[in-house]
Amino acid sequence: MSSAWDARLARRAARIFPSLRFDFDSLPAHPDAISLAGGVPPVECLPIERLAAATRQVWAEAEPATFAYDETQGHRPLRELIASRMRRRGADVDPDTIVVTAGAQQGIDLIARLLLDPGDRVVIEAPGYFGAFQVFDHYEADIVPVPIDEQGLLPAALERALATPPRPKFIYTVATFQNPTGVTGGAARRQEILALAARFDVPIVEDDPYGELWFEADPGPLRALDPHVIYLGTFSKTLAPALRMGWIAAPAALMRLLIDAKEAVDIQGDRLVQRAVVRACADSWFDAHLDAARRVYRARWETLQALLERYMPDGVRWTRPCGGFFAWVTLPAGLDARELLSAAAAAGVIYLPGSVFYPDLRPSASLRIGFSTLPEERLAAAIERLGGVIAAALTTGTRSGP
Amino acid sequence: MSSAWDARLARRAARIFPSLRFDFDSLPAHPDAISLAGGVPPVECLPIERLAAATRQVWAEAEPATFAYDETQGHRPLRELIASRMRRRGADVDPDTIVVTAGAQQGIDLIARLLLDPGDRVVIEAPGYFGAFQVFDHYEADIVPVPIDEQGLLPAALERALATPPRPKFIYTVATFQNPTGVTGGAARRQEILALAARFDVPIVEDDPYGELWFEADPGPLRALDPHVIYLGTFSKTLAPALRMGWIAAPAALMRLLIDAKEAVDIQGDRLVQRAVVRACADSWFDAHLDAARRVYRARWETLQALLERYMPDGVRWTRPCGGFFAWVTLPAGLDARELLSAAAAAGVIYLPGSVFYPDLRPSASLRIGFSTLPEERLAAAIERLGGVIAAALTTGTRSGP
Repeated sequence: MSSAWDARLARRAARIFPSLRFDFDSLPAHPDAISLAGGVPPVECLPIERLAAATRQVWAEAEPATFAYDETQGHRPLRELIASRMRRRGADVDPDTIVVTAGAQQGIDLIARLLLDPGDRVVIEAPGYFGAFQVFDHYEADIVPVPIDEQGLLPAALERALATPPRPKFIYTVATFQNPTGVTGGAARRQEILALAARFDVPIVEDDPYGELWFEADPGPLRALDPHVIYLGTFSKTLAPALRMGWIAAPAALMRLLIDAKEAVDIQGDRLVQRAVVRACADSWFDAHLDAARRVYRARWETLQALLERYMPDGVRWTRPCGGFFAWVTLPAGLDARELLSAAAAAGVIYLPGSVFYPDLRPSASLRIGFSTLPEERLAAAIERLGGVIAAALTTGTRSGP
Repeated sequence: MSSAWDARLARRAARIFPSLRFDFDSLPAHPDAISLAGGVPPVECLPIERLAAATRQVWAEAEPATFAYDETQGHRPLRELIASRMRRRGADVDPDTIVVTAGAQQGIDLIARLLLDPGDRVVIEAPGYFGAFQVFDHYEADIVPVPIDEQGLLPAALERALATPPRPKFIYTVATFQNPTGVTGGAARRQEILALAARFDVPIVEDDPYGELWFEADPGPLRALDPHVIYLGTFSKTLAPALRMGWIAAPAALMRLLIDAKEAVDIQGDRLVQRAVVRACADSWFDAHLDAARRVYRARWETLQALLERYMPDGVRWTRPCGGFFAWVTLPAGLDARELLSAAAAAGVIYLPGSVFYPDLRPSASLRIGFSTLPEERLAAAIERLGGVIAAALTTGTRSGP
């Protein structure tokens, strides 16, 4: 942009980016392109009929006052539903300490608004969720990427980040079925992370969009282990993204500020949708819906795993998620997943290259595979194509390193 | 709040307030309290059946993809509808330069995000809309209140504010049926304001929630006179607040930043509601609905005006709005509308005291009457009570000045 507006923009405007700083339109077209980039529930897991019926009933029964301004904190029965479900997952949350938000994304923005001054340091997983970088950039924060392994944040690296002054304002983590890697810490790792946060007196902001989508057992949220954790939840992955329905469960000491900040940003969430979610989730329907969705995602992950074993050349590694939507595939040293994407697109398969999951867009040998959206035969075709592209790159010497 | 969180909060947290910095709960209770505080469409003007039918149809017909992530800028047919209606009002707006927002409130936040650094000066009408102060406080702006008269911003005062360095980042104005006064500038005044903004090269942000609710004729938006004006619109007053459906119409040079900022704050608006608004407004229904609503508001204003003439003691003055929801009543010198509110509440009538419409909550002899929500007999009872309270204050010497 170059215009008279340049001189009028706030300093932060230089850090306002799209979440995905990658131009997919520049990739070669393919008549049958298959995307592994998806990070959403597939059409067949969207409970549209149930939500539609709940919506119809809510509109038919709503008091006219429901159509006016009110309930900045969120519809109380929805907060009770959320608290009840979080308590079943081990997190002792009170409806009074929940604020309903427009997806977890708005939760990230509200927390950043309360806590981040320009130049403040904020710890994030590397690789991590780009929508969080996007928000922290608006607050002109110094984003501190901390490496992860197959259990999440590496304690030694986290300790170094926390010990480096100035002390970070908070740690942002997707601790369960992480985006983009799918990894989850075991009990010991989680306690290490919590202990470090406590030792350095740095709050944890846990973003948990995938936590309820486990394959075998619920690892539970970090919030279940420590009531100081600020928890961000959402119905985007369990019901539908379009609902824009999420929440913050925060310490009581933050509630006044959170509610006042929510009022400033959009006055209130959609009161009809809040009621529709409560109605849709009644009568244990939500549990049955989640069970069915989990079976789909688990089957797709197992399919993907078998396909990776079959089609990936030697030297390719990948994570083994126990839930959620993502696996993280790392190519042999010397390959760059972003450079490889043109060849992949030409062969009819698209993915998110690892670099987009780092705030500095650093080169990465890894890529994210979203396995939630593709039925078996499409997933098979995609992975076969991807394997071929990687194999070709390994043999034709496009490797940039040794 | 006093807790370990104090030390962790961002500097702006000291400026996060509720929009209404007044404790109504502290007022005396009354068994038949009538509120003149409302600034919303009354129940009888909410087209719930029409919106419900549109919602049912949209849910029944929606492609499953509609339930996923997409359309950060907003559903194109809704942007086309908005642009078409704005063009009819004289504002040459293209759908490509519209971003759909969660009410106009989110529009204020997004514009502030693009333009305001801490310490930046921003001009606002005094009295003015408290929800705008609320946002500007989050951005740590220096809010510059400029007095208004019965035509809006006073040119001489505006000129002084614009000439004082540092130059304000923008002028925020509700130029039509202003909140809280109901005033609207004539053509000459509007041209003076626009000329001053152009001379000092300061953008205007026009918030226009009431513009379509004229009594006799549409004065048109400022945006119709100057394409550089950033325009904030909403369906909250014309359809229903609960829809959370508004928009920004901005210069093309700002669109990339606005769309990227919208993605960061909540990814996208509610795609089903956007489609329902398009469907509800089809076939000229919206025009007929607005005509009917205008007749209601005009009749209520005429009722209010007659009641004020009948019940207000000598020395009380009020504005004569030509549309919208509000009139501004100014008590004789020496009376403070906030101090008077306890006696009014005890007598069964509540209003918003003028002080809440100033960023510094300065004492004010004025009060806002919202006339949209009350049928004639309730309005009559409220104004009779209010007149009695003012008369009593004038005779019992509670006046604090000469």
